[in-house]
Amino acid sequence: MTQIKANDPILTFINVFKVEPENQERVVELLTQVTESSVKFTPGFISCALHKSTDGTKVTMYAQWQSLELYQAMRDDPRPLPFF
Amino acid sequence: MTQIKANDPILTFINVFKVEPENQERVVELLTQVTESSVKFTPGFISCALHKSTDGTKVTMYAQWQSLELYQAMRDDPRPLPFF
Repeated sequence: MTQIKANDPILTFINVFKVEPENQERVVELLTQVTESSVKFTPGFISCALHKSTDGTKVTMYAQWQSLELYQAMRDDPRPLPFF
Repeated sequence: MTQIKANDPILTFINVFKVEPENQERVVELLTQVTESSVKFTPGFISCALHKSTDGTKVTMYAQWQSLELYQAMRDDPRPLPFF
């Protein structure tokens, strides 16, 4: 579960993925899979929550990290790449 | 404090306000003021959290509401208008 507290020294990433409505659920499943199997075990990861837009055309990821350096280290890790 | 739980029947609004970096703190203050003095007492309001972009050019509001109807009723209420 994600908690948002005022004045926490947390870095938040809000990424919007544009999708075809028929793929929205599948994109949520893929992002959940890569988070649960890989990203959540990365140093610096705090939380991740996915949001489905009511019109079906977007999936918005709200992710909290301890720092930009630790986030960047995850992005440079090739292990989650097969999901993308 | 905002809590994000999977499968909660909650409507989330993510609004991005583009600002001049020298105004970012002031926009956060104004949005906090209108939320604390007015919006948070509106039926259907659950939570609101503000995020400052690291480059100073955006303020992102993450707001949770119980339903679109209750959110729309708040938007139709003229009382918070002087803040905008």
